[in-house]
Amino acid sequence: MTARRRLSAATVTLAHGGGGTAMRDLVEDVFLAAFDDAGAVPAAAEDQARLPLADLVARGDRLAFTTDSFVVDPLFFPGGDIGRLAVCGTVNDLAVGGAVPVALSCAVVIEEGLPVETLRRVAASLAATAREAGVRVVTGDTKVVARGACDKLFITTSGVGVIRAGLNPGIDRARPGDRVLVSGHSGDHGAAILAARGELAVSVPVDSDCAPLTGVITALLEAAPGTRLIRDATRGGVAAVLNELAEASRAGVRVVEESIPVRPEVRGLCDLLGLDPLYLGNEGVIVAVLPPDQAEAGLAAVRAHPLGRAAALVGTVTDDPRMRVVMETPFGGTRLVDRPVGDPLPRIC
Amino acid sequence: MTARRRLSAATVTLAHGGGGTAMRDLVEDVFLAAFDDAGAVPAAAEDQARLPLADLVARGDRLAFTTDSFVVDPLFFPGGDIGRLAVCGTVNDLAVGGAVPVALSCAVVIEEGLPVETLRRVAASLAATAREAGVRVVTGDTKVVARGACDKLFITTSGVGVIRAGLNPGIDRARPGDRVLVSGHSGDHGAAILAARGELAVSVPVDSDCAPLTGVITALLEAAPGTRLIRDATRGGVAAVLNELAEASRAGVRVVEESIPVRPEVRGLCDLLGLDPLYLGNEGVIVAVLPPDQAEAGLAAVRAHPLGRAAALVGTVTDDPRMRVVMETPFGGTRLVDRPVGDPLPRIC
Repeated sequence: MTARRRLSAATVTLAHGGGGTAMRDLVEDVFLAAFDDAGAVPAAAEDQARLPLADLVARGDRLAFTTDSFVVDPLFFPGGDIGRLAVCGTVNDLAVGGAVPVALSCAVVIEEGLPVETLRRVAASLAATAREAGVRVVTGDTKVVARGACDKLFITTSGVGVIRAGLNPGIDRARPGDRVLVSGHSGDHGAAILAARGELAVSVPVDSDCAPLTGVITALLEAAPGTRLIRDATRGGVAAVLNELAEASRAGVRVVEESIPVRPEVRGLCDLLGLDPLYLGNEGVIVAVLPPDQAEAGLAAVRAHPLGRAAALVGTVTDDPRMRVVMETPFGGTRLVDRPVGDPLPRIC
Repeated sequence: MTARRRLSAATVTLAHGGGGTAMRDLVEDVFLAAFDDAGAVPAAAEDQARLPLADLVARGDRLAFTTDSFVVDPLFFPGGDIGRLAVCGTVNDLAVGGAVPVALSCAVVIEEGLPVETLRRVAASLAATAREAGVRVVTGDTKVVARGACDKLFITTSGVGVIRAGLNPGIDRARPGDRVLVSGHSGDHGAAILAARGELAVSVPVDSDCAPLTGVITALLEAAPGTRLIRDATRGGVAAVLNELAEASRAGVRVVEESIPVRPEVRGLCDLLGLDPLYLGNEGVIVAVLPPDQAEAGLAAVRAHPLGRAAALVGTVTDDPRMRVVMETPFGGTRLVDRPVGDPLPRIC
């Protein structure tokens, strides 16, 4: 067994992205070291991971495949960092489709001059989150660009998972009468990022909800196997998911504002800044549509999970041919929840 | 069927990365439009692709999984562009492991202000190259960052493929006496990028060799099924691959300088700039190690392929316990081919 390479530099240089010994030192000393007990790719020398398929797959199973780039600013924020986010985002994109995550890839673009210590912290968080999510990072890539050609660090994770035969949640499967479940407080991640940027005159004691959702989704699917669809409310928040499912399912959605879980401190921040928490992104909250006869069982299962304690049934799918999302306000009126044009905050993920 | 969204903007704005309607317009009008006849993800509304596994897999097959970020500068160069590169790089990382590529993902990070027309050209090239490589782009992600937070456009592609039972090429499988094959001219991609940057006083009429290598690798494996290992010579060039295989296989390599295919114009450029073509990256050249009794058959098969016409057997694996790569020069001497520290050119891929 060859001894692991050691990195002597304190900051990342262009040579660390050049495919030679400098890059190998960086990969081995920072990334492979972080993954030691999570079990990364055994041979860093190979450009691909190889996974036994027969062990993974039964007849009728499907392979789920997803990718996301993470450009969050700042890299570290209350409740998480870009490494944790990069694992959670991709694990969650697999899990909402009913897939059990099997393996992740991780490609990093690093700005020359980034302190190696920063990279170590991110790699450690990435590895710890992969362990928490029960998934292995099996392959990766490293590029370094000159100062000013990227902002510190971008991470792209891709994931493969297996969807068991019979499971088929889909954004187009909501039917009038179905119930809409939201699993946690709306907007926590967006509010935490906003607060972490340090541009506010007030301090906002809110952590990102960033978490791997495999466990809570498994619990939901066991209790409510007829679940029509699950989505994680990321960019554009719960409002974006409600509009997407309405349009894809050619139905309407009617939600009760008071039933949507929002932390008082996030609501306060939003009031102050003229934002709506329903449009702020989460990284650990799902929106699920359940058939009416499984809604209470599904809600109970989600609430029993540590990541779903604040869950609530917030509304109902309607047969509105105009595919609108309508909100009942506390004052007895209604207002339209428009599909967002963009996220109110750039680079929240 | 819903009509496809149209994009009205001429340049990309932050809203195009925000997860709302602006992003969807961009994805549908630029990316999905480009993939129309290549067959992209049918439902852009889902965050994951779902692939039937039973159709793909026989007993003993393995899943190959790989990822690469592309940060090439400039985006367009003679013989290719970042879109073509992003498909070829990932397809080739699958193919060199003996995998048949099945599906790609594509995540883009775009600098605010990038002309939409530039993005269209890249998407069209990406789609055309995927068709050429016989692979489908099935899922993707789009992020936009503010001006100055990235340099124009980065693309991360990941790929999954199936390695048939019985195929097991590996970087550690070279044995003394094995022959070393190089499939094309060394350094063409690096030289083309260097020339495209327009910083040279001379013009260099050389195209990048950027190409999907699935076909030539399939031909090689049919003619020489005992092939020990295949690698594409990207960052760090042929020199990096030779050193990696020597170290991983705990063997030496002896190559004959005159037998290594290098275009005269690339050699001339290298002489001028004090570079060594053996260290310049390719994007369409493989290094393969063949058992001696299959070397000639393998060479003939590679040469019969349009991408392997310049192929040559350039050397032999030795039992050097110091795992050195030694070059025989035209003058009867020898010199050591060191493992590169970094690539002589940053951002060639």
